[in-house]
Amino acid sequence: MGLSEFEIIERFFATAAIRREDVLVGIGDDAALLQVPADHEVVSTMKTVVEGVHFGRGANPQSLGHRVLAIALSRLAAAGATPAWVTLSLTLPEANEAWLTYFSTGFTKLAERYQVQLVGGDTVRGPVIAIAVVANGFVPMGQALDHRGARAGDLIYVTGTLGEAGLALLAERGTIRPSQEVRARFQARLDLPQPRVAEAKVLRHLATAATDLPDGLVQGLGKLLHASGVGATLYLMELPLSPETIPWLPAAGGRSFAAYAGGDYELCFTIPAEHQAAAEMAIAKLNSDCTWIGVVDTAPGLRGVLEDGSLDTLQ
Amino acid sequence: MGLSEFEIIERFFATAAIRREDVLVGIGDDAALLQVPADHEVVSTMKTVVEGVHFGRGANPQSLGHRVLAIALSRLAAAGATPAWVTLSLTLPEANEAWLTYFSTGFTKLAERYQVQLVGGDTVRGPVIAIAVVANGFVPMGQALDHRGARAGDLIYVTGTLGEAGLALLAERGTIRPSQEVRARFQARLDLPQPRVAEAKVLRHLATAATDLPDGLVQGLGKLLHASGVGATLYLMELPLSPETIPWLPAAGGRSFAAYAGGDYELCFTIPAEHQAAAEMAIAKLNSDCTWIGVVDTAPGLRGVLEDGSLDTLQ
Repeated sequence: MGLSEFEIIERFFATAAIRREDVLVGIGDDAALLQVPADHEVVSTMKTVVEGVHFGRGANPQSLGHRVLAIALSRLAAAGATPAWVTLSLTLPEANEAWLTYFSTGFTKLAERYQVQLVGGDTVRGPVIAIAVVANGFVPMGQALDHRGARAGDLIYVTGTLGEAGLALLAERGTIRPSQEVRARFQARLDLPQPRVAEAKVLRHLATAATDLPDGLVQGLGKLLHASGVGATLYLMELPLSPETIPWLPAAGGRSFAAYAGGDYELCFTIPAEHQAAAEMAIAKLNSDCTWIGVVDTAPGLRGVLEDGSLDTLQ
Repeated sequence: MGLSEFEIIERFFATAAIRREDVLVGIGDDAALLQVPADHEVVSTMKTVVEGVHFGRGANPQSLGHRVLAIALSRLAAAGATPAWVTLSLTLPEANEAWLTYFSTGFTKLAERYQVQLVGGDTVRGPVIAIAVVANGFVPMGQALDHRGARAGDLIYVTGTLGEAGLALLAERGTIRPSQEVRARFQARLDLPQPRVAEAKVLRHLATAATDLPDGLVQGLGKLLHASGVGATLYLMELPLSPETIPWLPAAGGRSFAAYAGGDYELCFTIPAEHQAAAEMAIAKLNSDCTWIGVVDTAPGLRGVLEDGSLDTLQ
């Protein structure tokens, strides 16, 4: 490609204002040198997306830059980690400066919001655009959240609202036809997911397990329950929905759409009943929302309670 | 692809015998949970290779698995780091089980040699094979090596021998026609580079700067000198060569071939004269070799002294 690896990284990414004190050697060298705070553990996650598989040709590069970092930060959030460093592998058919400008803007803006520093990477040529991100964060020793701690009797919560990113996909396909304003709202949820970093952090002491929901509530919670060796019952009528979402549910297949639709990147967590008030208050203090949507029980599988009280097997 | 991401990782990689105590949550979860030893810093590096760009269609998958990890470990070595964890992003057109078996064997065997644990990754579909590796290691606080510490008067050393990987490429092209045995030797240097992990570790206290040589001595040392703000003179007659290499140098363009040829993944380092004996002894104790090949000086650039005493500008 026209620009060398070093030039690409320098010109498009090194402009980010983040200069973390724990980054002793950052981008530009063959290897980064990094400090982990005492009594903390490292949480690390990797995400790869490929053009034609995870996103279409001509996908908005600024959304893409945001989205690929958001996906990785969302996973860190689900572990209760504070994001710190990120490494980026960029495969490009050509060094398209406009594309790089928009991509790096989306990436860098989100990185700045979470004080995440790009500490290394690789830019290579390839037949299609492919992006691999490794994100690393810290968590105080012994306080990381994972999928394995949910116990029968725990309450199941979810942050924010569900279904808007899924409705954006239905609008793209023409299955639903919301107003331009509502469609833009749904599209923003799909294109610019917001990782629940702050919410997960205050839940470290309170939650028994947590997961983010890239592929929807049923899939994410299902994985968590399986890892914990328990099952759950969801109150489908309690799933948190935005007012804009409700009119489109019938066309989307009913209320359970919000249980299956992915892309919202909300956080689902389980808490013992005695932490319920503390968790709700901690989330409210962040000017954020969480909703009690179900209960962990001993019977394996995931059941949904419908409006008429009947049970539906979700997974 | 036929096999899910989880199945691919489980079946082909999770068989590795390495179970590090500092890996609290490893592969299989969305994020790994890792411990860094007290008073140590993290060294992190990323390498991406793409089919059709960095390797040809039909490249030996076992060599590829070895090579991509070796490249990353070599960079860690150049920083004086002890390798610990690795993350792997694998883009594949299809889940070819034979390919995956060979690739993972090459990767896993090398990982086992250095007690490196695969702690996460991503397997996705894409039009060509692409591999991104992030390798992380530890270094005692303040002891990492980088490119910036070389000072005028320091002696320049290189480990092992130079040029064999480059001769393998010439043999592939038919420029030289060594015996099958010699060609196999050259090919092994190209396909199965050995990161100089142990050598770099004993040099932490002694060297002022270090680099590995993926793209040859002139390129690697040139970068190091530039970063240090110094220049150097190389004694081209002193470049370490295997007995098998010498007969092929005339056809390869003379002695300077060994200065330019890449792929040997040797370590080049600079040491103050007072550490010369200690460095040579420390390397010898590892049953390894290092050779004094030049001197750092204040004049910018890289010069080579030829047999007749004349100077050649190398960079």
